[in-house]
Amino acid sequence: MTTTETTQATETSGDELDRTLQSAAFAAAAWGASTPRERARALTAVADALDAEKDGLVSAAERETGLPEGRLFGELARTSVQLRMFADLLDEGAHQRIAIDHADPDFAPVARPDLRRMLVPVGPVLVFAASNFPFAFSVAGGDTASALAAGCPVVLKAHPGHPETSLLTARIVRSALEGAGVDNGVFAMIAGVDAGVRALKDPKITAAAFTGSVSAGRYLFDIATSRPDPIPFYGELGSINPAFATREALQERPEEIAKGFVDSFTLGAGQFCTKPGLLLIPEGTDTAQRIAALVPQVQPQRLLTTKIADSYRLRLEDLAATPGVEVLTEGRFDAAADGVPAAGATLLRVHARDLPAQASTLLEESFGPTATVVEYSSQEELRQVLALLPGSLTVTVHTSAQPGESENGDVRLLLASARTKVGRIVFNGWPTGVSVTAAQQHGGPYPATTSVAHTSVGGAAIERFLRPLAYQGAPDHLLPPELQEENPLGLPRTVNPAGRFKEGGNAGRA
Amino acid sequence: MTTTETTQATETSGDELDRTLQSAAFAAAAWGASTPRERARALTAVADALDAEKDGLVSAAERETGLPEGRLFGELARTSVQLRMFADLLDEGAHQRIAIDHADPDFAPVARPDLRRMLVPVGPVLVFAASNFPFAFSVAGGDTASALAAGCPVVLKAHPGHPETSLLTARIVRSALEGAGVDNGVFAMIAGVDAGVRALKDPKITAAAFTGSVSAGRYLFDIATSRPDPIPFYGELGSINPAFATREALQERPEEIAKGFVDSFTLGAGQFCTKPGLLLIPEGTDTAQRIAALVPQVQPQRLLTTKIADSYRLRLEDLAATPGVEVLTEGRFDAAADGVPAAGATLLRVHARDLPAQASTLLEESFGPTATVVEYSSQEELRQVLALLPGSLTVTVHTSAQPGESENGDVRLLLASARTKVGRIVFNGWPTGVSVTAAQQHGGPYPATTSVAHTSVGGAAIERFLRPLAYQGAPDHLLPPELQEENPLGLPRTVNPAGRFKEGGNAGRA
Repeated sequence: MTTTETTQATETSGDELDRTLQSAAFAAAAWGASTPRERARALTAVADALDAEKDGLVSAAERETGLPEGRLFGELARTSVQLRMFADLLDEGAHQRIAIDHADPDFAPVARPDLRRMLVPVGPVLVFAASNFPFAFSVAGGDTASALAAGCPVVLKAHPGHPETSLLTARIVRSALEGAGVDNGVFAMIAGVDAGVRALKDPKITAAAFTGSVSAGRYLFDIATSRPDPIPFYGELGSINPAFATREALQERPEEIAKGFVDSFTLGAGQFCTKPGLLLIPEGTDTAQRIAALVPQVQPQRLLTTKIADSYRLRLEDLAATPGVEVLTEGRFDAAADGVPAAGATLLRVHARDLPAQASTLLEESFGPTATVVEYSSQEELRQVLALLPGSLTVTVHTSAQPGESENGDVRLLLASARTKVGRIVFNGWPTGVSVTAAQQHGGPYPATTSVAHTSVGGAAIERFLRPLAYQGAPDHLLPPELQEENPLGLPRTVNPAGRFKEGGNAGRA
Repeated sequence: MTTTETTQATETSGDELDRTLQSAAFAAAAWGASTPRERARALTAVADALDAEKDGLVSAAERETGLPEGRLFGELARTSVQLRMFADLLDEGAHQRIAIDHADPDFAPVARPDLRRMLVPVGPVLVFAASNFPFAFSVAGGDTASALAAGCPVVLKAHPGHPETSLLTARIVRSALEGAGVDNGVFAMIAGVDAGVRALKDPKITAAAFTGSVSAGRYLFDIATSRPDPIPFYGELGSINPAFATREALQERPEEIAKGFVDSFTLGAGQFCTKPGLLLIPEGTDTAQRIAALVPQVQPQRLLTTKIADSYRLRLEDLAATPGVEVLTEGRFDAAADGVPAAGATLLRVHARDLPAQASTLLEESFGPTATVVEYSSQEELRQVLALLPGSLTVTVHTSAQPGESENGDVRLLLASARTKVGRIVFNGWPTGVSVTAAQQHGGPYPATTSVAHTSVGGAAIERFLRPLAYQGAPDHLLPPELQEENPLGLPRTVNPAGRFKEGGNAGRA
């Protein structure tokens, strides 16, 4: 198979798909058995190659997505930084979470054998690229980086919103991997809905990752879980990301909060997974007016695709026609130079008492530059709204530096609710802008994601593509190097941990 | 709600179920926010109470399951040891995997906020008890222990195979928890298929665990994943656990291997999840005859329930009627004192060349004291059989102390296959007898389990019931104690890890 055959942006044929999946399955054993340092070198080679080609990549993405150049250079920098982060994580080697229990004939109540456990790659991973981050959540994005880091071959289903950018990126990835001596089957790109669905049903695919809409994500999740052999499907679907400001905070920083909210919900034309779609505030402040005054200053921004623009327009019509909803500022639609619509920002308002009857419409994500201010008149109303909120990636809370009793009550309610409904709680900031660090969590209960225990951003994203494997009583020469007694790879390992697990401890077997 | 209302072995009514689920949901916040040490004390109280009542528990289980007294005392000891193991794990506190990244304005390419991540409980867990371990995988078994340890309330669906044992255990658990000051909603037992299915569909249940058959497990998995809000379903379904011995190993230890295999596949009347159902060996040895000679010495053992006995009998008829299958020893069926059938062991043989055409029958788990010897004549035949093997909990391999070239080839093939198909590879031993330690892995690809990344035995079992939550830029007084700067609970935490994640490092955000 040549590079050009498998890195294409046009519909992948059945035969091509079969060859691609076969190559991925074939490559899985060697790539999975490569050492963490070998994979680190390969990821670094990909990062270097992306950096070297940044001008060409950004100009292709600019043409196809209409996103501004500065944003695209920043996103590409994040993309190569992510690859380097996983390279560093592999060099540290803690991701395999190696645990070794030596044999212990005196172990109570029953003697225990030598047991050695580590995480190993799950096998070939299918990644569905997203539309809204043509680099960071696309061909060489976080899903691809973490799956490759785990030791899994990646079959990447390109997003039709930026085919040339995808093709260019895929060629760079393949060429860099080839230069690092990595088998061709370790990375391939396919295109077309049919090819994506067929790949998802194929037994050679052992896990999948996706970022996109609730409808597409649920459709694919259902396919993954109804296979004869169900596989994990890590989907990031839709998130309303409620924000909340106390009366005291609004008194202290009225303009700062209003401006921060507008900047955040209109960033990237409101097409961020973490866009705050809702602002929950006590009634009787001038916050809504302040925000409404700022919104028209945001220039119309080109949406990612005509399809997204069409959906967004329909969605706005639905929202405006919803009983109780007041349109405070209506953004105008322009046509961008290339014919894809640009949208100004739209601000809506609804009273908390009118929300429950319209929850299914109002609490759904709107992909575009709009947000709704929800004003409540009592803690009981706040409680009712919180109970209705669906799972989200984030919740944001603006508090006072000198909180009073009433603020504390509202904040306690909100935090208790957030603990069950989101993956990240942001204080006195905004949820857009997801820092790529060890302590990051980008996930949340359904429909924010299909797997609440995982993240798609940060070092822990690698965990999605690993599974445990234990060796019992193995002769040293039959162990993989990670588990050999002499620790030839010098990896961090937990050997005979203290406490109940310690040698001669009290744990048992039956 | 009183103890007697919710710890019953008869069918749970709709109203009772609603109250039970409501109580569990209500209890989730406080139990989830309790400190690891508080939960450790509660688990220890349950373990102490089970130990104190062991005579009554074992005699109830003996009456209901027909399992021998010695085995039941051992299993109960393992059950309380498991609870204590999780108590120790909570005392150590590493299970929350706390990571703290301090804010860093100089972080490249973009300043990073203060981020603090920890694992938190998922919420109320529904546990389906198993038939084959009336203590260790039942009311107070590993699923219950790990979910409680995680901070999740447990709704336990009793197995109908041992209702009195279940009732007695549930009362002991509730009374011990009550004595430890734990809310009544943290543990409840329900009974009946309808109640179990209704609970699984209820939005208040956030995860489920199950050990049982492929058909029941898949039925429940499909319900969990097709909910409007799908939840994780940790099912342990069916596993054939292939064992393998090289020609050299069979020459060195013919009798030891034959006897070990018989002991393992007939242990507990062959009703263990890890029963080796298949022995793969090169043709031209007398191994099958040796095993066949030992099998009749195993006395018929009472099966767990009449239903299991009926299914087992039908399964044996199917196997015996399968083309290419030779019945080497046919176990007889007796009626035990209480009318539940007892079964002698049955040994089958098939040649590897006849297996592919009958794979769907022969490679399915048989729940009862039977196993099949598969003899192959070439490495190519071995490779074909390995390719057909479904996911299993374990694979077992017997090797020579002085392996020759031919053995090495076969073993390499086998280990490469095992790395993709099982959770534990056992060398020169047998898979039954699952040691409860840190390095244990009791899981595997479908149909062994529905979630290949998890284990239901050992310390890591707690991971099934935890999910990450991150706090960004939080005022210290609004953080949970686990994440407060002063670390008031004294938990192990990773703060500003070195490498790419370190302060002033090169990671970024976009």
